[in-house]
Amino acid sequence: MGADHARKLARVVSGAELAAVTDFDARVAGAVAGEFGARVHADGVELIDDPAVDAVVIATRDDTHADLVLAALRAGKPVMCEKPLAPTADRCREVVAAQAALKIPVDLVTVGFMRRFDPPYIALREQVRSGELGAPLIAHCVSRTVHTYPGGDSASSITQSAIHELDIVPWLLDSPIVEVSWQHGRSSVNSAGRQDPQFYLMRTASDVLVTVELFLNARYGYDTRCEVVMEAGTSALTLPTHIVTDVERRRAVAYPEDWIPRYSDAYRIELQEWIDSIAKGRPSTLATAHDGLRASLVADALVESMRTNGSWVKVPD
Amino acid sequence: MGADHARKLARVVSGAELAAVTDFDARVAGAVAGEFGARVHADGVELIDDPAVDAVVIATRDDTHADLVLAALRAGKPVMCEKPLAPTADRCREVVAAQAALKIPVDLVTVGFMRRFDPPYIALREQVRSGELGAPLIAHCVSRTVHTYPGGDSASSITQSAIHELDIVPWLLDSPIVEVSWQHGRSSVNSAGRQDPQFYLMRTASDVLVTVELFLNARYGYDTRCEVVMEAGTSALTLPTHIVTDVERRRAVAYPEDWIPRYSDAYRIELQEWIDSIAKGRPSTLATAHDGLRASLVADALVESMRTNGSWVKVPD
Amino acid sequence: MGADHARKLARVVSGAELAAVTDFDARVAGAVAGEFGARVHADGVELIDDPAVDAVVIATRDDTHADLVLAALRAGKPVMCEKPLAPTADRCREVVAAQAALKIPVDLVTVGFMRRFDPPYIALREQVRSGELGAPLIAHCVSRTVHTYPGGDSASSITQSAIHELDIVPWLLDSPIVEVSWQHGRSSVNSAGRQDPQFYLMRTASDVLVTVELFLNARYGYDTRCEVVMEAGTSALTLPTHIVTDVERRRAVAYPEDWIPRYSDAYRIELQEWIDSIAKGRPSTLATAHDGLRASLVADALVESMRTNGSWVKVPD
Amino acid sequence: MGADHARKLARVVSGAELAAVTDFDARVAGAVAGEFGARVHADGVELIDDPAVDAVVIATRDDTHADLVLAALRAGKPVMCEKPLAPTADRCREVVAAQAALKIPVDLVTVGFMRRFDPPYIALREQVRSGELGAPLIAHCVSRTVHTYPGGDSASSITQSAIHELDIVPWLLDSPIVEVSWQHGRSSVNSAGRQDPQFYLMRTASDVLVTVELFLNARYGYDTRCEVVMEAGTSALTLPTHIVTDVERRRAVAYPEDWIPRYSDAYRIELQEWIDSIAKGRPSTLATAHDGLRASLVADALVESMRTNGSWVKVPD
Repeated sequence: MGADHARKLARVVSGAELAAVTDFDARVAGAVAGEFGARVHADGVELIDDPAVDAVVIATRDDTHADLVLAALRAGKPVMCEKPLAPTADRCREVVAAQAALKIPVDLVTVGFMRRFDPPYIALREQVRSGELGAPLIAHCVSRTVHTYPGGDSASSITQSAIHELDIVPWLLDSPIVEVSWQHGRSSVNSAGRQDPQFYLMRTASDVLVTVELFLNARYGYDTRCEVVMEAGTSALTLPTHIVTDVERRRAVAYPEDWIPRYSDAYRIELQEWIDSIAKGRPSTLATAHDGLRASLVADALVESMRTNGSWVKVPD
Repeated sequence: MGADHARKLARVVSGAELAAVTDFDARVAGAVAGEFGARVHADGVELIDDPAVDAVVIATRDDTHADLVLAALRAGKPVMCEKPLAPTADRCREVVAAQAALKIPVDLVTVGFMRRFDPPYIALREQVRSGELGAPLIAHCVSRTVHTYPGGDSASSITQSAIHELDIVPWLLDSPIVEVSWQHGRSSVNSAGRQDPQFYLMRTASDVLVTVELFLNARYGYDTRCEVVMEAGTSALTLPTHIVTDVERRRAVAYPEDWIPRYSDAYRIELQEWIDSIAKGRPSTLATAHDGLRASLVADALVESMRTNGSWVKVPD
Repeated sequence: MGADHARKLARVVSGAELAAVTDFDARVAGAVAGEFGARVHADGVELIDDPAVDAVVIATRDDTHADLVLAALRAGKPVMCEKPLAPTADRCREVVAAQAALKIPVDLVTVGFMRRFDPPYIALREQVRSGELGAPLIAHCVSRTVHTYPGGDSASSITQSAIHELDIVPWLLDSPIVEVSWQHGRSSVNSAGRQDPQFYLMRTASDVLVTVELFLNARYGYDTRCEVVMEAGTSALTLPTHIVTDVERRRAVAYPEDWIPRYSDAYRIELQEWIDSIAKGRPSTLATAHDGLRASLVADALVESMRTNGSWVKVPD
Repeated sequence: MGADHARKLARVVSGAELAAVTDFDARVAGAVAGEFGARVHADGVELIDDPAVDAVVIATRDDTHADLVLAALRAGKPVMCEKPLAPTADRCREVVAAQAALKIPVDLVTVGFMRRFDPPYIALREQVRSGELGAPLIAHCVSRTVHTYPGGDSASSITQSAIHELDIVPWLLDSPIVEVSWQHGRSSVNSAGRQDPQFYLMRTASDVLVTVELFLNARYGYDTRCEVVMEAGTSALTLPTHIVTDVERRRAVAYPEDWIPRYSDAYRIELQEWIDSIAKGRPSTLATAHDGLRASLVADALVESMRTNGSWVKVPD
């Protein structure tokens, strides 16, 4: 992910230059730096303190996010942190507090919830907000990937993968999630010890019931679905396609393999908005530290529901 | 519905003749009888006892179903009863018992769960049963209609409308529903005192989690959706369409207004199968009295869950 | 085809009984007759003259059609002849003349252009005739099959396969075809000596330009497409589907293998309409002998264009 | 179009700055320049000669293109000219000759056939070139817009609008167009003296038959379609969509109003490729002056066919 951001900043984002990179694998850092003429730092803190660095993107291991964001805040530099802001709500709160303590008009911290910049999600949100079809009543999200990566468990499915739904749903419906319930049935033979698929019920402050199917070993493709059912009709994301091919008795369109092609535009537009906001000293439309905290609080509530047999769990403010 | 069945039996089902009709509105009965040269009876029991009547279709008010079915059993005539077999599981049990007491090799009672004869549902079931995509893990049903009819309440949404899903899901997944939970969020401004939409979680004996959205005031169209997620892929009903029209900046296909055009083929094929089975004295593939009872038991469990704040309720055997 | 018609008449068409069958292969005739309790005749003329036969369906080799239709006319029996009415326009004219010579109010001869009873084509025609989108300006037809059968040539592609388009286009646009031009490019490696694909330009009396791609070795599936472009928008047939399946990085719907599943409903509805019209002594909405002649005249004009290097050829009245 | 290019170069293309603008309407030039901090020139030649200008984009009236491109060549500056390179093939040849006379390894002239950078067209080309479905046999293009602009005629429909198909088809099929025929039927009531729709038959050197429907007053939306039929299957552009909306008995996706939203990505990617190629001194993958000439030669052949009653006209080398 870091290499992809580096490439986009160096090559397709207007107004940005890639000054420096670092990576726990020095060869990776060297290769990326060499390709774009950037310098290499030994670690994130060194990079953040480099005077040639005006702003920082963090795409490291989840458990290093909060410390690096805090370092950027200390250095007074804009920082975009890949989701999650931190693996626990407590550490997210620390970041929110540090940002608040600066008492500056424009936040330095932003969180990379790139779906907010995905043109299909934006179109869906505009349709909902237009009011043309009346108030939303119920919404259905599906998030499927081809396979899991080694090392996770049922809780990390929530905090690392479902976290995107936990951010995008309130953004889409303009109302926070206040209550959640975790559900499950049969698990895939490929689930390697996790519960997969998982199913969530969530309720917004506006009393919209939201359902989420998360299935990480869905095998067939990377597939994000979302439908918002309103009073007078319903609106849903389509599968983005370029071509349709007819062969061997079937008419078919292709699924992406993973999130990188699916959200390539979203990442580019997000980075451009971030760079533009920095250049102009204005707030960006990226997710804030507070948004990152909110998503973590919902994730924690889902984990608690999972551990209490699917009970409804309230999300703290 | 009765008039539609009468017309199909008289005009498009091979091997059937419309001998007699009855209706609580004598003018309606007279009009249908006149159109097809059938005789008119004062009530259902008189019609059942007419020697010219070899087999009986019941499409009357729900609370009259069981008594008429029992009358047909007494007369020893094959009877197809529109769903539900009876408004309560107890009355369904009475019919099942009366059928069993006859100790005959071929059931006389069948229930009009016509979706079992819908070509899209049949194709979906064949895909699931082929095993090509592995075992089913989770399934999603959506059942939306344009508007409710006066006089119902939240419970009748389950027993009269959702009942179709309660029959079709076990048929589709080849496993009975053993446990259910009733959920809800915001209700439509058009819901007239009911909870609408409603949302159900159901679990089959094979541990497949099944979700159902029932939304009777969906306004936009009559829409039945069903997706079965299996180990290696997913399969879903498509919206049946004949033409696509491009006008005024949009590409659009049409939704049916109600179930009659949507399930027209299913009704015809069901009636043909019923007539053929009678002609040959063989069991039909229509739903049995026992299937009607099973669906009512699941409906009752959902009503109980509704009255106990969404608790999981077991379905009795 | 004959066996399929026999089965439909015996089993799913209301008001019909299968009285007798014949086939050049006596075993086939015997098998079908045995299945449905019909008698077997040595040949078509014997069958036509059987007093137990009220009406006749002809689904024999193309070059036998006209003689059998004439025999049915002599016997004064309603006859439905599979397309084409005859392989040449001259023989079609003979049938038209024989029908006219009877001077009876209701034609005995009908031609099995079943697409006129296909619900998608009917919906498209209703959209065009509604005038909602203004007058038709241009129309595009595509007719593709999986492979050719041995023994045909470029001309028989027109007279046996494209003939369906030649009948359906005037019916759809409510205007006869008056002029045609035959075109071609590269031929498929599978074309076995024919020109395949072929491409036609046709003009209706109402000056609509109609294009037709006929590709018999398209391999991927049986696919009939038709789009009518009108002043304010465009309307087209959709691919009839029941389910959509997501597997191996693709979302796919199925093509039929050939015309039998694609037009199964059309054949059934056509036969029902034919039987109903006979029972009531009223004209049917099936294609007439004159329609069969018109299609043959257009086919002959296309063959002439093919032999004159794609020149525009007028269709005689 | 010019303002859109200026905005993209200033805001979303990496490595570009907007140095100067000009426009025949000085207020437009002033507004754009003000927005992005660029300077304003009195005319194109003055802008081209500005030492602060490293490269030039031309999006002026068609008949000024060639002169401005020649001025850029004289100034030795890279120039991207919107299509067409010139309204006549003769003037295109002049530009090709001027480029050739420079005897430099990297062309300065590029032509803005942006569809070559449209992700759907690129995916279609990759499918064709992969050879997976065998050789292309026939291809169908449809190019529809909402309405015409005042002042054109049937010939300018070809040279200004259809020109995109005339460039993209050889690029897609990897073979030049060698022969064309212009056809027509009924014209739209909105056609204001033009023939609209028009229909073209074209043949490539590889003997693929290509059909093109151009309909500028299609009213319903901006719609570019392209299907390539190959030996084993067919592949086609899909309508790019973000959301699907169900309301008022229909399921609908939106058409763009014109080419700017439809090809927004293509324009951005094209400009980025152009800037990158200039920065690195390497040839770009944009269309060359020779490509611009080829398209004009095909357009001229179509105009000649139009004036000779649809005869097949050869395209000169």
